[in-house]
Amino acid sequence: MSKLAKEMNRWVSRSMDRHVKLAVTGLSRAGKTAFITSLVNQCLHASTSDKLPLLSASREGRMIGAKRVPQSNLSIPSFTYDDGMDSLLSDPPTWPEPTRDVSELRLAIKFKPKSGVLKHFQDSATLFVDIVDYPGEWLLDLPLLDMDYLAWSKQQQANLTGHRKVLSEAWLQEAKQLDPLAPVDEKKLARIADAFTDYLHTCKNEKGLHWVQPGRFVLPGELAGAPVLQFFPFMFLHKYTEEELAKAKKGSNIAVLKQRYKHYQQNVVKKFYNDHFRHFDRQIVLVDCLQPLNAGENSFNDMRQAIDQLMHSFQYGKSSLLKRLFSPKIDKVLFAATKADHVTPEQHPNMVSLLQQMIYQTWQETAYEGIKMECMSIASIQATTAGMIDEDGEIFAAISGINTAQQPMMMFPGEVPKRIPSKAYWETEPFNFMSFQPLKNENDRPLQHIRMDKAIQFLLGDKLI
Amino acid sequence: MSKLAKEMNRWVSRSMDRHVKLAVTGLSRAGKTAFITSLVNQCLHASTSDKLPLLSASREGRMIGAKRVPQSNLSIPSFTYDDGMDSLLSDPPTWPEPTRDVSELRLAIKFKPKSGVLKHFQDSATLFVDIVDYPGEWLLDLPLLDMDYLAWSKQQQANLTGHRKVLSEAWLQEAKQLDPLAPVDEKKLARIADAFTDYLHTCKNEKGLHWVQPGRFVLPGELAGAPVLQFFPFMFLHKYTEEELAKAKKGSNIAVLKQRYKHYQQNVVKKFYNDHFRHFDRQIVLVDCLQPLNAGENSFNDMRQAIDQLMHSFQYGKSSLLKRLFSPKIDKVLFAATKADHVTPEQHPNMVSLLQQMIYQTWQETAYEGIKMECMSIASIQATTAGMIDEDGEIFAAISGINTAQQPMMMFPGEVPKRIPSKAYWETEPFNFMSFQPLKNENDRPLQHIRMDKAIQFLLGDKLI
Repeated sequence: MSKLAKEMNRWVSRSMDRHVKLAVTGLSRAGKTAFITSLVNQCLHASTSDKLPLLSASREGRMIGAKRVPQSNLSIPSFTYDDGMDSLLSDPPTWPEPTRDVSELRLAIKFKPKSGVLKHFQDSATLFVDIVDYPGEWLLDLPLLDMDYLAWSKQQQANLTGHRKVLSEAWLQEAKQLDPLAPVDEKKLARIADAFTDYLHTCKNEKGLHWVQPGRFVLPGELAGAPVLQFFPFMFLHKYTEEELAKAKKGSNIAVLKQRYKHYQQNVVKKFYNDHFRHFDRQIVLVDCLQPLNAGENSFNDMRQAIDQLMHSFQYGKSSLLKRLFSPKIDKVLFAATKADHVTPEQHPNMVSLLQQMIYQTWQETAYEGIKMECMSIASIQATTAGMIDEDGEIFAAISGINTAQQPMMMFPGEVPKRIPSKAYWETEPFNFMSFQPLKNENDRPLQHIRMDKAIQFLLGDKLI
Repeated sequence: MSKLAKEMNRWVSRSMDRHVKLAVTGLSRAGKTAFITSLVNQCLHASTSDKLPLLSASREGRMIGAKRVPQSNLSIPSFTYDDGMDSLLSDPPTWPEPTRDVSELRLAIKFKPKSGVLKHFQDSATLFVDIVDYPGEWLLDLPLLDMDYLAWSKQQQANLTGHRKVLSEAWLQEAKQLDPLAPVDEKKLARIADAFTDYLHTCKNEKGLHWVQPGRFVLPGELAGAPVLQFFPFMFLHKYTEEELAKAKKGSNIAVLKQRYKHYQQNVVKKFYNDHFRHFDRQIVLVDCLQPLNAGENSFNDMRQAIDQLMHSFQYGKSSLLKRLFSPKIDKVLFAATKADHVTPEQHPNMVSLLQQMIYQTWQETAYEGIKMECMSIASIQATTAGMIDEDGEIFAAISGINTAQQPMMMFPGEVPKRIPSKAYWETEPFNFMSFQPLKNENDRPLQHIRMDKAIQFLLGDKLI
C-alpha cells in the first residue's frame, strides 16, 4: 500500500471504531460474575477457537482478536476478571466471588468488517465494549419515583403476605410504638430502621425473596449509617386519617420520614439512572428461575414480582418515569435464564417459555417502542454434562457433575414447567435443584458454556458486521 | 406578652438563629471520636452542671439547654454518639470505636443572649452547630494539586529515608520491573499499586508514620478496586531523561500513571475541598504529640512533616491552591494537643509550647490573613487523675489510672520537651507513654475532661453572646 493509502486507512479506521456500553444485571445470585467472566473469556479466545458457531463474526472467521484495555471511568472499581479465572482454573475449580455494587471492564474486539464502507477501506475495525455490572436490586427502586411516601407505605402494607408477614413481626413490634405526629425522635427512627433493614436482609438471605425495597438498604456502600437509609414504610395508616398525616408538623416523625424518602428518591434512585443507566446501549438481565422453583411458591412468585418491577426500567413508552429524567438509549434487552446446565437439555425450551411468559407484557410494549427483546436459556460456565441413565432398562435423561460438597453426582432434577405454575404444581414438590461446581477448564481453552455465542450474537453481533 | 409581641419574638428568634459548621480533624488515633463525644456530652449537660467555667456562656449562667437535632446532609453517615457513650459508661469503661471517613452530627444550643439586638427582643436564641468529622489524612493530599505526576514522584523519591527506605524495598522490587515507556500493562500496574498500598499501610500501622500520600489509598471507601487508586510514584527518574518521559506515548505505562494521578487530583482531592472543606466555618485539628515522642525520632519527625503538609490547607494567603478553587470561610483554627492527662499537669505548658513551635510559621501567616489560631492542651475524656508519689521522702508528680491491660498504674511518664527535640534528646529514651482506659463516668454527670471548656470557648464562645 502507498503511504497515503495507509494514512487514509488509519484515519478511516479510527473514525469508524465503534463503542457500545453493555450493562449486565440480575438479582443476587443470578450469575452476573460468571456471565461477565465467560463473556470476556469467549471474546479473548474467539480468534483461535471454534466454540462460538452462533456468533456470525466467529463462524465467518472474521474475529481477529480481543484484549482488555483501560476502562473509561477511573472511579468505578474494575471487574476482577483475573481473580475469577484463578478460581475457575484452580483444582478443584470454584465459582468466582460475586461482585458487589458496580464494576466495569473494557474490551477491544478487532474484527474484519463484512460489508459496507468499512469493507472497502479497512483490513480491520475495532469494537470497544464497556461492560458494566450493577445489582438488579437497584432497578427495583425505579417505581419509587412515581410514589410519594404514603403511597409507597400503602403498597408495602398491601404486599405484607406469606413469608413477609411472618418475618415482619419483630420490626412491626418496634414500629408500632412510633407516634407519627410526635416531634421527631431520631434514635427511635434509627432503631426502627435498623429492625426494618434486618427484616429486608432476612427476606433476601434466608427466604430467597428478591423484591426488596428500597434496594440500597441491603447494599448500602458508603451510605451505611447515613440518615438517608434511616426510614421505613409507615404501616399503621389505618389508625390515622389521611388528613391527620398530611397535616403533620414540620419536625414530626412522619415529616422526617417523608423527607428522608424524598432524599432517597432524588439522591439515590435518580442518581443511579443519571450517572449510569442513561449511558447504557445494551442490557442483559440474568434470571435464575431454577432456585426459586425449588424454594417453592412463595419464593417463585416473589421473583416474578421482582422481575415485574424491574421491567419498568425498560418500558420507555408507557412509563413516563424515565422519560421525565432523560431519554434512555437502550435498544436491545436480553433476558437470559441462567444455569441451563443444571437441568437436562430437553428442559431448556421450557425455561425459555417460562421466562417469556413472565416478561410477556413488557415485551409487547417495548417492541412497539422499537426496543428489541429476546429470551434465551444459557449456561455462562458449564458445571455439568448431559447424559442418560439406564434404570431397569428404561432410559432417562440426566446431568452429571461434582456438587458443592465435592461429590460426583448424576441426577434428573425434574421438569421445568412450561408456563407459570398453578397452585396444584406446588403441591407435588416436583423440582429438585442442586448446585454444582464448574467443570474443570484448561487455561489455553475457552470456558465451556451453553449458548454464550447466541447471547453475544444478540448483544453485539450487529456491531461486528 | 401580647399575641403580637409573641409572634414578633418568634419571628426575630428565627431570623437571629445562628449556624456554625465546625470541622473536627486530626491524624488517625489523635482522638477525634473522643473529642466529638465529649463536646456533645458537655453541651448536653451545660445547663445543669458547672464543669465548664472557661466557657463564658456557661459561667454566666446563660446556657439554657442543648439537644441533638436532625443533621443537614442526609447522605453523610451520622456520628454515632450513643455507641460512644455506651462504651464509656460500660464497666469497665472503654474508648469509643474510632470513626472512618466522614460523619456528621447537629447540635442545637439554646442560650440567653448577653447583649445587642438579641437581648432586647428575645428570651433565648439558638446556635445550630454542624459537627463534621473527617480524616486528617485527606488534608495531606492538598499539596498534590500543585504538583504534576513527575514532580510528585520526585518529592516521594527525596523523602525515601529512615523507616520508609527499609519498608519500601518490597514494592520497589516490583516497581523496578516496569518499563515506563512500554505499552500499558494494567495487570502489572495493579500489582505494583497493591504493593505500594501495602507499603503505605505498613508505614502507618506498624511504624506510626503519618505522612501517607495519597491519603485515600489507606481509606479507600467506595473507590476500593477502582483504577483511580491504582497508581504510584515513579521512583526511577534517574534512569530516564526528562525528555524521554515527557515524550512517552499515549498508551504507555507512564502515560496511564499520569492520567490516573490527574484523575485523583480532580475527582478525589478537589472533590473533598469542594464538597466539604469550603463549607467549614471553624476548624479544630487534634494532634497527639505524645505517642510519636514515645516512638522515637523517626516517628516524631514524620508527624511534624504531616502537620506541615496539613497546614497548607489554612494558608489561604500564601498558597494560591485553595483560592484557585474557591474562597475558604474558616476564620478560626484550634490546634489541640490531646491526651494531656497522659502526662503530669506541670508538663501541659510544654505540650502547648512544643505544638506552637511546630505550627509557628503558618500561625504568623494566618494571623496576617485575619484567621485566628490558637494552641492548647486538652483531654477530651479524662483517663487518669494527677497526684504525687512519695519516693524515699522525695515527692514526685504522677498520674494514676487503669491501663489497657486493666491494671491500676501510678507513674511519671517523663518530661515533654518544650521545644522540638534535638538529636541528643533522642539518645536518652526520655519518654514513657502509656495508654489508659477512660475514668469511670456516671450517666447523669458530664464526662470528666481537661480544658474542653477552653476549647469550646475558642470555637463557639463568640457565637453564644
